[in-house]
Amino acid sequence: MKIIRRELSKMIDISVLKPEASIKEIEEMCRAAKRYNFKVVYALPWYIPIIRSLLKGTEVEIGAPIAFPFGGVPTEVKVYETTKYLDLGATEFDMVINLGALKSGDYKLVYKDIEEVVKAAQGHIVKVILELPYLEENEVFEACRIAEDAGAHFVKTSTGFAGYVPKVEDVYLMKKALKGNTQVKVAGGVRTLEQVFDLIKAGVTRFGVNMNSAVGIMEKFSQEYGEEYEL
Amino acid sequence: MKIIRRELSKMIDISVLKPEASIKEIEEMCRAAKRYNFKVVYALPWYIPIIRSLLKGTEVEIGAPIAFPFGGVPTEVKVYETTKYLDLGATEFDMVINLGALKSGDYKLVYKDIEEVVKAAQGHIVKVILELPYLEENEVFEACRIAEDAGAHFVKTSTGFAGYVPKVEDVYLMKKALKGNTQVKVAGGVRTLEQVFDLIKAGVTRFGVNMNSAVGIMEKFSQEYGEEYEL
Repeated sequence: MKIIRRELSKMIDISVLKPEASIKEIEEMCRAAKRYNFKVVYALPWYIPIIRSLLKGTEVEIGAPIAFPFGGVPTEVKVYETTKYLDLGATEFDMVINLGALKSGDYKLVYKDIEEVVKAAQGHIVKVILELPYLEENEVFEACRIAEDAGAHFVKTSTGFAGYVPKVEDVYLMKKALKGNTQVKVAGGVRTLEQVFDLIKAGVTRFGVNMNSAVGIMEKFSQEYGEEYEL
Repeated sequence: MKIIRRELSKMIDISVLKPEASIKEIEEMCRAAKRYNFKVVYALPWYIPIIRSLLKGTEVEIGAPIAFPFGGVPTEVKVYETTKYLDLGATEFDMVINLGALKSGDYKLVYKDIEEVVKAAQGHIVKVILELPYLEENEVFEACRIAEDAGAHFVKTSTGFAGYVPKVEDVYLMKKALKGNTQVKVAGGVRTLEQVFDLIKAGVTRFGVNMNSAVGIMEKFSQEYGEEYEL
């Protein structure tokens, strides 16, 4: 498998999602996103209009976290958020699954919740965050099945706020549940190029990485391999 | 100062707010709330209709966390949430302040954000969560001033998800900023009756406590003092 530097950067979403981040950190993230041409930037949603003006004229996309990071709001609130952020200029949506409903076995609600957000996103990419540290294996499997059936474009391992470190075994489990319409995004604890290579080999097509680690990963790639590398 | 057991329980809000809590834990919380006659119960908002039916016919109130736990959504989303949860039966609202705006010095936005939620709550109690571990002293002071001016009924120390342990010094600082229209709720890290007594003496009038600690506090009071105690 050939990894091309310019394509690798388009597999990486960067984020500054900690609640106390100020506008300075958002500006810094947008500068890094432009410089390395990352795929999407994520901040807490009130920053979307600010990010929109910072990224004007670039191909970096604006992501919106939905019901972030706990996921436990009524579907109508998730739909309202999606519609609002789409209107403000977001083009990708990372929603947190209703973990309480999943844990309570209310799969119908989990499905409906995702389906409605997918509809509200009007064809834009929707990723469903599962938060693996809180789930049993069978719940991960079930959640992947539900997300794919409900039309999600990606299932995603974690918000990055639950102490999760990605394992290739998690990706194998998720891929086993999926029928091929839904891809896997890994987020939380991705720090090195070696991790990225291992996870790509396991089938991951998108990474959520914090700004500093993302820059480190791209710099490492350039230093070690230049423009491309045969994985 | 006389502490009467029946009044003490009405100074305590209990909560099960972890994202992976299932309906079983919500039921358990509601049983404890009824048994000890606590003031308000809090769970993630999609549980409000379930809690409403569990608490039917009791005087325990239903609380709604707004923009919980990160606070960084546009004001319109906070207002939508408040209106929605009021409609579903919530009677108290604990909103997270816009921490990013506060950190960026955009006090006008912080004010407007609170003012709009207070308006949407139609006279019901609104508490503004500051998340003290992320704030400098001057930011706590400023946030208290803004919250009071915007009509908040309480300022609250923490969501309980930022590793906060309450200190009486924090309460003194908050009370110093406030002019007397806004009260102080302490949440996060309240575990014992001794802490509660110290914090009451410092001027706290409401506590956010997890279910097990709240039960422990009331049991301890009954065992040690029975119906009342001169603090």
